[in-house]
Amino acid sequence: MLDALFKPKSVALIGASTKELSIGNVIIRNLQTYGYKGEIYPVNAKATEVCGLKSYPTIADIPGEVDLAHIIIPSQFVPQAIEECGQKGVKAVIINSAGFSEMGEEGVRLQEEFLANARKYGIRLFGPNCQGIINSDPGLNAYCNFTFTFPKPGSISVVALSGGVGALIMQVLDDLDIGQRLYASNGNACDVSIPEIIQYYGEDEGTKAIILYTEGFDKPREFLEVTREVTAKKPVLAMKAGRTEEGAKAASSHTGSLAGVDIATELIFEKIGVLPFNDEGEMVRAAMAFSSQPTPTGNRVGIITNTGGPAVIATDVLVDFDLEVPKLSDTSIAKLQETQFPQAALENPIDVVATAGGPQFRAALDVLLDDAQIDCIYINFVTAPFTDTDAVAREIVDVSRQRRKPLVCNFMTNLKLERYQKTMAILKAGEVPYYANPGDAARALGALVQYGRIQQRDIGQPHIFNNVDVDQAKTIIEQAQQAGREVLSAFEVYKIFEAYGIPVAPWNVATEAEQVVFAAEEIGYPVVVKVDCAEIDHKSDMGGVAINLKNATEVRDTVIEMQARLGSFGKLGFLVQKFLPGGRELIIGASAERELGHLVMFGLGGIYVEVLKDVIFKVAPVTKIEADEMLAGIKTSALLDGVRGEAGIDKQAVTELIQRVSQLLGDLPMIQEMDLNPIMAFADKAFAVDGRIRIESKS
Amino acid sequence: MLDALFKPKSVALIGASTKELSIGNVIIRNLQTYGYKGEIYPVNAKATEVCGLKSYPTIADIPGEVDLAHIIIPSQFVPQAIEECGQKGVKAVIINSAGFSEMGEEGVRLQEEFLANARKYGIRLFGPNCQGIINSDPGLNAYCNFTFTFPKPGSISVVALSGGVGALIMQVLDDLDIGQRLYASNGNACDVSIPEIIQYYGEDEGTKAIILYTEGFDKPREFLEVTREVTAKKPVLAMKAGRTEEGAKAASSHTGSLAGVDIATELIFEKIGVLPFNDEGEMVRAAMAFSSQPTPTGNRVGIITNTGGPAVIATDVLVDFDLEVPKLSDTSIAKLQETQFPQAALENPIDVVATAGGPQFRAALDVLLDDAQIDCIYINFVTAPFTDTDAVAREIVDVSRQRRKPLVCNFMTNLKLERYQKTMAILKAGEVPYYANPGDAARALGALVQYGRIQQRDIGQPHIFNNVDVDQAKTIIEQAQQAGREVLSAFEVYKIFEAYGIPVAPWNVATEAEQVVFAAEEIGYPVVVKVDCAEIDHKSDMGGVAINLKNATEVRDTVIEMQARLGSFGKLGFLVQKFLPGGRELIIGASAERELGHLVMFGLGGIYVEVLKDVIFKVAPVTKIEADEMLAGIKTSALLDGVRGEAGIDKQAVTELIQRVSQLLGDLPMIQEMDLNPIMAFADKAFAVDGRIRIESKS
Repeated sequence: MLDALFKPKSVALIGASTKELSIGNVIIRNLQTYGYKGEIYPVNAKATEVCGLKSYPTIADIPGEVDLAHIIIPSQFVPQAIEECGQKGVKAVIINSAGFSEMGEEGVRLQEEFLANARKYGIRLFGPNCQGIINSDPGLNAYCNFTFTFPKPGSISVVALSGGVGALIMQVLDDLDIGQRLYASNGNACDVSIPEIIQYYGEDEGTKAIILYTEGFDKPREFLEVTREVTAKKPVLAMKAGRTEEGAKAASSHTGSLAGVDIATELIFEKIGVLPFNDEGEMVRAAMAFSSQPTPTGNRVGIITNTGGPAVIATDVLVDFDLEVPKLSDTSIAKLQETQFPQAALENPIDVVATAGGPQFRAALDVLLDDAQIDCIYINFVTAPFTDTDAVAREIVDVSRQRRKPLVCNFMTNLKLERYQKTMAILKAGEVPYYANPGDAARALGALVQYGRIQQRDIGQPHIFNNVDVDQAKTIIEQAQQAGREVLSAFEVYKIFEAYGIPVAPWNVATEAEQVVFAAEEIGYPVVVKVDCAEIDHKSDMGGVAINLKNATEVRDTVIEMQARLGSFGKLGFLVQKFLPGGRELIIGASAERELGHLVMFGLGGIYVEVLKDVIFKVAPVTKIEADEMLAGIKTSALLDGVRGEAGIDKQAVTELIQRVSQLLGDLPMIQEMDLNPIMAFADKAFAVDGRIRIESKS
Repeated sequence: MLDALFKPKSVALIGASTKELSIGNVIIRNLQTYGYKGEIYPVNAKATEVCGLKSYPTIADIPGEVDLAHIIIPSQFVPQAIEECGQKGVKAVIINSAGFSEMGEEGVRLQEEFLANARKYGIRLFGPNCQGIINSDPGLNAYCNFTFTFPKPGSISVVALSGGVGALIMQVLDDLDIGQRLYASNGNACDVSIPEIIQYYGEDEGTKAIILYTEGFDKPREFLEVTREVTAKKPVLAMKAGRTEEGAKAASSHTGSLAGVDIATELIFEKIGVLPFNDEGEMVRAAMAFSSQPTPTGNRVGIITNTGGPAVIATDVLVDFDLEVPKLSDTSIAKLQETQFPQAALENPIDVVATAGGPQFRAALDVLLDDAQIDCIYINFVTAPFTDTDAVAREIVDVSRQRRKPLVCNFMTNLKLERYQKTMAILKAGEVPYYANPGDAARALGALVQYGRIQQRDIGQPHIFNNVDVDQAKTIIEQAQQAGREVLSAFEVYKIFEAYGIPVAPWNVATEAEQVVFAAEEIGYPVVVKVDCAEIDHKSDMGGVAINLKNATEVRDTVIEMQARLGSFGKLGFLVQKFLPGGRELIIGASAERELGHLVMFGLGGIYVEVLKDVIFKVAPVTKIEADEMLAGIKTSALLDGVRGEAGIDKQAVTELIQRVSQLLGDLPMIQEMDLNPIMAFADKAFAVDGRIRIESKS
């Protein structure tokens, strides 16, 4: 589908230039430098030759077919150029030119104009305001880009919203001598989108791992659905910048589209098994390990070191990544005793000591390969001047090539010395992922183990509860919309909860004091009486809530007092509810997110949410396993099990509640915000005792 | 004092070897390669020449004076070698040989033996089981070390417990082309200690900044006192590995000395203004900024970028370090409007766009230098192929050299291209701290700002309360020690609290029911009655606590019931105390740390400490400012100010309480553990309502 873009048989350059260092010149030079196997057609109104190639006055003058055209001319001429591309039969266009949606109204108008022209001819557009693509396939060598790094062929493909970061990733990969497959940075992304590119990479057989840089998504649900299919097949390593408010502001300034810190991207990554990073260097160094090592089946690491301190640093970092450093088996220790120097430490870390040569390293590696307690291997290898470092490197390569257990190597050396350059070349040729310090190596292995964990995690499918009444809930909301209301009354909220089998404490509504008493008698004392005030969120702030009313007199007096004191609010009616003291206060919330669906939140109520912000979010629909993760994931999860002699809560009831809320949100997308706050959870049950729903207004 | 070690006029090598790659050969080659200006005397029983130098059969045969000797012979011969060094008048010895305290009993014995010989002659010993030292002073060029990195002269000095990490730090500094001054890695450190080396670096005029790597200290108080003096004069950047239990175990295995995770080192760093790092690469890259840039006076950063995404990444990281990204002044924006391209974003980050050349960069830099809202500058500089990158680099260098505001540069380029190597050479020669990606550059600037903050922080001197009765407290403890007890009774604990003016709820002790009632009547109801049971920490677990007793009958019944139920524990007596409901439960704790003094802990009681572990530690003595930091530093500090309509607590009373506890601990070092748990804090007061003290046993 995107073959014309990524595998063009010919490339035209509208805006080809004879001026050195101009973009219209640099791209041609890049195609030539990289050895592009297709035809290059410069288009320039005046020149007859550009970079030694015949140039054409217009695209119509090009004799052959054109798969892909670059457009590198001022923005106002772009719509016409697209029209001409259409007439020529061009299949895809990379618009490098800027001056569109990122530059205000006139730019938006131009973008709409050229988009219409492209649609007319079925042209796929890449950009505008973008770098372009690279395809390192030696049969093609397409460098349709103005950057300056020439990747060697490999199996990692890169897609980046920001060209600057894309180029940086490409550069760091190249500095690490890691091959790359496809590269794309699509700028304003008016047509070909990042999800589409990821899908393409997913289907590309030569791509073994994908690196993604983004600052958020215009269509997060599309990304979620597409990328979920891809992560099932190959690892997707991703970084989302704009984590902070200031960072998001900076992102919004350069992309002109997104604004505000969104947590949704990170939650999507988590949901669909994208491996998340906060640091671009760390992501690329991890990719180095992914490109040659198998995925670990567990988190137990064996460490081999020929120097003390770096093993301590590595251990700290590995433990940060939840790796275990288990004891070695007796068999392993016995084998080490036979093979290592007397000064060696036969523990984990195994300190083979600085004088260890190839045989000692190899023996230690073999022990770790054979020890069933070990899933992966970390090596510190400092080039001690009194050892045969090449022999050590060769043994590491040999073990790495067996692909029995993943390994990484922290290779500490002085590359100014030729002797050690040679040692490094052995590691490099052997595709051992090696790093210049223990922290970097340990983080790369940590990422590999984290990916193994992601691969093994199956969140399952959302459970569908059948005993729900969608129609009743829909009717309530539609009626409220027709009445022009955005916030539902307590009566409506409770009716919707009931329709979805969400347990609520026994309740009723009434307007006059005697009706309230009647309702209370039916429910049974003690009761709570609340003003049914949809307009004000915090009923208790206005003194509209009375708890633990024990008899008819207390209820009657309370209602009369509230009616007198609260003026018009007192006329809104009252909610009477069973009073249930002594439970654990929980909160479930939901919010609709632009182009995604809903986020669901869980936490402990009261100060836990207000002061500690101790809550967990998930993208709906939430499965049973995700609901379990929510309960286990809060910092105060121990409180759910009971502390200081208190009973724990009925977790099963709460996870079912979360899943029912999730199903409700899926059925009722017009819900903008919803709170079940508080939920009172007991050892054997859980009830929503207050709720709030805000819906999309009809207008 | 350590001049013979760091500035030796002559070096002898006991164990010099003709065998290439052996340590006794490598050190001589290193001295020669580095251009050592002093005399080198190989000592070898058989050879007449080593590495082209005349060799001597024994050290006694050396004609000249010997400042420093390396010992590189098997451990059992070291005591005799030290004896011979003494007779020769050698001033300092580096023992490279291993096989001492790290290798068990026989090693310890040998170490004691050679130490005795050294003391006899006043020889200072460095090591054993160590690398050695380097002094890059061009007048000396002393490379008394077997490593393989040859640092250029500079102003950063390094001291590392681990030779492996020391060499790594030296290597990374050298890879970044940062000059170094002194280097030391002292292994087992039987004599010359890290604090002593830091003190020496502190006094060394050529050392402008110090990098320290450690895994803990044998004598933390010595380190604290010494390094406090040094941080007042120059920055000390430090990393402490063994943060995790597994890491600490690895450390203990290779140093043979320390064990267990200690938080004290990090607390010492905080107390005395050492800049802490968790990553060795980050520490060294920060040092690069320290070596050429002034210290920021504030945390407001101005960002200049010629590419979008990297500015977003940098902004995120800078915000992580608590930097602000303020709006630019109207004057600044006006000046940018005059000087920048139309596509430029005139905000902060300032996006000068990819086509910006020297003049655009310079104008933006000048705007940030002149804007009073900006304290420091971050630059993203990608070498866009269509710009004069050398001109940009020259402007950055010029601004950096002005030293008006600190700056760092993320320099994104392809160093395989000669053109950009030249640009890099300009930045390097101009001593601009430049990094290969935005995260690294931002973290380096973050560290610089963090150091500025540390420099400005003055914790003051501990307040001395005069209305305390040291003698009374000492007498109580001494009597308990004489009675062979380690845990004090409630009576003793409360008496000690009273002696130090620590407010306790009105209390008394009694044995029989009627005495308890009498005491309760005096105190006034309601009261709490507790078994005064020193042996059992958790009185409430055994049903030995009754709260809110409102009259004589309730008190009497409770005591009789407890006496009947608790058997011998009921005969220990009872503590009667005023019952004070409704306060905020706090906890203050203290523990004696090996060779340091006490740590003091503060937190909220109950689930906050049990489930959330939300506590702050400080090294005693605690000043007023540190006590304030403790209250402000817990995650739940908002609860101290009151939430949900509750009143806040009397913070002044609590900070005074912390300081009084601190003073008590300083006066009574025999206290091993102390808890004030809970403290009940109210809007206008705070009381300890239970306490526990464990003391050192006399035996």
